[in-house]
Amino acid sequence: MEILRVNMSDLTIKREKLEESHSLLGGRALIARLLLDEVKATCEPLGRHNKLIFAPGLLGGSKVFSSGRISIGAKSPLTGGAKESNGGGLVGLKLGRLGYKAVIIEDLPKDNKKYLLKVSKDGAELLPAEDYWGLGVYETARLLIDCFGKNAAISLIGQAGEYKLSGAGIANTDTDGVPSRFSGRGGLGAVMGSKGIKAVIIDDTGTQLKEPANGEKLKELARQFKRLLDESPVAKTYTVYGTAAMLEITNALGGLPTRNFTTGSYEKADNISGERLYEVITSRKGKPSHACMPGCLIRCSNVYVDEKGSEIVAPLEYETIALMGSNLDIDNFDAIAKLNYLCNDYGLDTIETGAALGVAMAAGLIPFGDVEGAINLVHEIGKGTVVGRVLGMGALITGKVLGVTEVPVVKGQAMPGYEPRGVKGTGVTFATSAMGADHTAGNTIRAKVDHNSAEGQTTLSRNAQYTSPIYDDLGLCMFVSVVYGSNPGLLCQIVNAQRGTDFDKDCLFKLAGDTVKWERKFNQKAGFSNVHDRLPEHFYELTNPAANTVFDITDEELDQVHK
Amino acid sequence: MEILRVNMSDLTIKREKLEESHSLLGGRALIARLLLDEVKATCEPLGRHNKLIFAPGLLGGSKVFSSGRISIGAKSPLTGGAKESNGGGLVGLKLGRLGYKAVIIEDLPKDNKKYLLKVSKDGAELLPAEDYWGLGVYETARLLIDCFGKNAAISLIGQAGEYKLSGAGIANTDTDGVPSRFSGRGGLGAVMGSKGIKAVIIDDTGTQLKEPANGEKLKELARQFKRLLDESPVAKTYTVYGTAAMLEITNALGGLPTRNFTTGSYEKADNISGERLYEVITSRKGKPSHACMPGCLIRCSNVYVDEKGSEIVAPLEYETIALMGSNLDIDNFDAIAKLNYLCNDYGLDTIETGAALGVAMAAGLIPFGDVEGAINLVHEIGKGTVVGRVLGMGALITGKVLGVTEVPVVKGQAMPGYEPRGVKGTGVTFATSAMGADHTAGNTIRAKVDHNSAEGQTTLSRNAQYTSPIYDDLGLCMFVSVVYGSNPGLLCQIVNAQRGTDFDKDCLFKLAGDTVKWERKFNQKAGFSNVHDRLPEHFYELTNPAANTVFDITDEELDQVHK
Repeated sequence: MEILRVNMSDLTIKREKLEESHSLLGGRALIARLLLDEVKATCEPLGRHNKLIFAPGLLGGSKVFSSGRISIGAKSPLTGGAKESNGGGLVGLKLGRLGYKAVIIEDLPKDNKKYLLKVSKDGAELLPAEDYWGLGVYETARLLIDCFGKNAAISLIGQAGEYKLSGAGIANTDTDGVPSRFSGRGGLGAVMGSKGIKAVIIDDTGTQLKEPANGEKLKELARQFKRLLDESPVAKTYTVYGTAAMLEITNALGGLPTRNFTTGSYEKADNISGERLYEVITSRKGKPSHACMPGCLIRCSNVYVDEKGSEIVAPLEYETIALMGSNLDIDNFDAIAKLNYLCNDYGLDTIETGAALGVAMAAGLIPFGDVEGAINLVHEIGKGTVVGRVLGMGALITGKVLGVTEVPVVKGQAMPGYEPRGVKGTGVTFATSAMGADHTAGNTIRAKVDHNSAEGQTTLSRNAQYTSPIYDDLGLCMFVSVVYGSNPGLLCQIVNAQRGTDFDKDCLFKLAGDTVKWERKFNQKAGFSNVHDRLPEHFYELTNPAANTVFDITDEELDQVHK
Repeated sequence: MEILRVNMSDLTIKREKLEESHSLLGGRALIARLLLDEVKATCEPLGRHNKLIFAPGLLGGSKVFSSGRISIGAKSPLTGGAKESNGGGLVGLKLGRLGYKAVIIEDLPKDNKKYLLKVSKDGAELLPAEDYWGLGVYETARLLIDCFGKNAAISLIGQAGEYKLSGAGIANTDTDGVPSRFSGRGGLGAVMGSKGIKAVIIDDTGTQLKEPANGEKLKELARQFKRLLDESPVAKTYTVYGTAAMLEITNALGGLPTRNFTTGSYEKADNISGERLYEVITSRKGKPSHACMPGCLIRCSNVYVDEKGSEIVAPLEYETIALMGSNLDIDNFDAIAKLNYLCNDYGLDTIETGAALGVAMAAGLIPFGDVEGAINLVHEIGKGTVVGRVLGMGALITGKVLGVTEVPVVKGQAMPGYEPRGVKGTGVTFATSAMGADHTAGNTIRAKVDHNSAEGQTTLSRNAQYTSPIYDDLGLCMFVSVVYGSNPGLLCQIVNAQRGTDFDKDCLFKLAGDTVKWERKFNQKAGFSNVHDRLPEHFYELTNPAANTVFDITDEELDQVHK
């Protein structure tokens, strides 16, 4: 297994053997370790010392179900800390098939030139990207697929990444060649833009899926997995309604961010629920269920279409519906889908951008519920005007510039679709994760507890934070936890059948624990301490009326999470 | 000695006895102690837990020369740390005469109403300020003096403070009732604005100067002081040329910030030198020398007039000339004076605003040297437009929004007129002061050393950082250090003659040391560590061509400064 090291200053590309000690690291774990080993934690995130890392998981390139996620990481320009942002689509699978553990992009181009990085069986090369610079994500992906063929999976940025905005993500293409699988969080698109890279093109022509160490065993285990998945009501909900099914749950709990997180339940929630989304999509002959990775059995994705059946955006997901729907008082799927499409095309994280728009509405820049106003502001970001750049920098900067102190961020990163007073365990994760506010770092919403109560939430969050990296390290979709969460032994057997290892549960948990530890260590070197493991002041002092509670987890309790 | 405590939420005003243990604290020392005792270090700076503190020095209200400085402090919205910002004029003197050690303004108004705080011998009261809200600093001061009479000294904010911009300072009126003595740094104007206070009016009618414990002795010591001052060539330079005399010195050293701190010497420096300023002012019948406090013998201030002899701004000082002159490639005093006037009127710190304009020019928003463009942008701040708010938030936010990574700030605060690669000792102070980049925290420019060399600079900075609070604690103008710097014993005798204490040198240095220690302790609780005691990356990596050097003080050396 090899690392591909690309230097943007001298334009050299090297293939290196991965250090033996890192051979059992993948995805998020490998990124955390490489950041700690190679990147000065205090460096300027958009400067020459930061590195942008693409790493498939330990199972990347294999036949194991839903194992093709790509982890992308760097020091985040949004948080200033360690960042891994994880996307679906085909990039992880193809990088794995090519035998790369990681692609590390270093330094800055000397000449302000723009590049494509193409990686294939025959090697890697930097190609001129001037023709694509300035184009949106969708057009760029279409042109690149025309040029490089359908075997190319692509990670790419839009204008937001080119402008080096902290709200910029990296888009990854899916099974249909559609670039809408976002490694959205943490401003990694800005890091890619700073390095002058418009797109990374991964062509796996001539490669094979990685042979499992024990194929028969893997087949048998896969059958077990399928059987358990078939029995999972949660998985079924994902398949039918997609992630949007979450909206009824959070809304009922008072955990649905509404009007810049001033309350946790939305009086018009029925208009943007998972059930309603299913009705609209099916009545218009869209696709309510769709796989972002080959062979995925959950297929939580969808294709949202207009009244004539033409695609507006695919997928339309819970986080976007929460942040650009209830959070903006927009109860209209067509409007949310349009905003989602525009964010995708400009290469923006819909969570950060939705939160920034919510802050702008709280400031009175436009009123809550103003669809045209919101669309115009997203266009301003795409055009790179000053107001657009403010919003494109995310919710924190938007709040500072527009004079709003009640801003839903932790460590500079906007909260996703869980109001932390309504879903307190996830609130604890927001506060204490090295990533900043991030539901994928340890979401507790599925636990059978009183989410409005403070009791037991730190333990719940800790367990979630020290479990979720398992999936990110292996390259698995988080949603297979519906099976593996209660069957970690099965997951170990699958890893062993594929890789010929002798992992047990403890190995997996150790890997996850190391991941969190390394990320926190990096952050500590970057200047973070327990002081930064807090929610913004107003969540402790103002009541979320829908949950009738403040965030009442003490500092001492928060400090126990990682002890 | 009493404290006046004003609560903006319930609109109560209390007079309290100062704690006995704090009786020998004043000015900056008292602010540092009160912040540590009373303000949660992690609080939102514009929220209800922050406190705005006005504190005259230990000698405030006395006859001692140049002892009327006012210290204003709070948790800074610009840096997030402890902040004391010190101004001339009459506020400190009059507060001292009224017998107040500090005025502490707490909490936020419930009703969004705006207030004046009036303090006099008869007590203190909150009065409606709606009629003044929205007005500039000059007009507000004129109206308030019309209303409250010429015995009123006023601390007030302009539109920038009302908008809660981090570049907003607090203006203090001088002997002429002109509100141009700025407690400019750290965004304290925004804290005042958040508390709904347009102006604090200090009327000392019916009070006396504080009687010295030993009047005869004080007179004798005053004569000694005068004699020594008369012998000081530096003092003479201040009197003739004002602070602008510094420009030739820094320019020659490669220490004059030029074009967003990309170099340290300005090819057109002759057009904006102290000598040239003297020529222009005298030829136009302005005042080259002027006292901001009654009886000041140094009179470093001036009145800058246009060709017809009408005042443009008073004073025009070195920091403004550096930050809005060479730093913007503007070599025209009339233009700099106009920018200075506008900043004063909107209530903006000229250092922070000059640095922000420099960053905006580096971003290409307007070209370097564009006077009209710069004036227009300052007007945008005054109008509160989005681009104005960006600039008004200071250099760091301007850099983030406009995509400039080479931004001259430390801990979020812009560097004043000392290019840190050219004047390395002051650069060490910028890096390691709890205040962020601040020349008054420990300027080394007067030391007879090679300022371009790294050698000995940490010791020099340490000495300066642990000496300068003496002046801020006593309420003395920094410039009397031209006498006391080499005669600390004389200063002790003066303190003792006034206050009846038995201070020796060690007492003064202990007080200064405590000040620094408490500020650092507050910052530590707010989340700062040695990691934050650094200059921005580019100062270590890009050469200042005028000094032919990078900032080559190691992290280990910086960490020794406060050990």
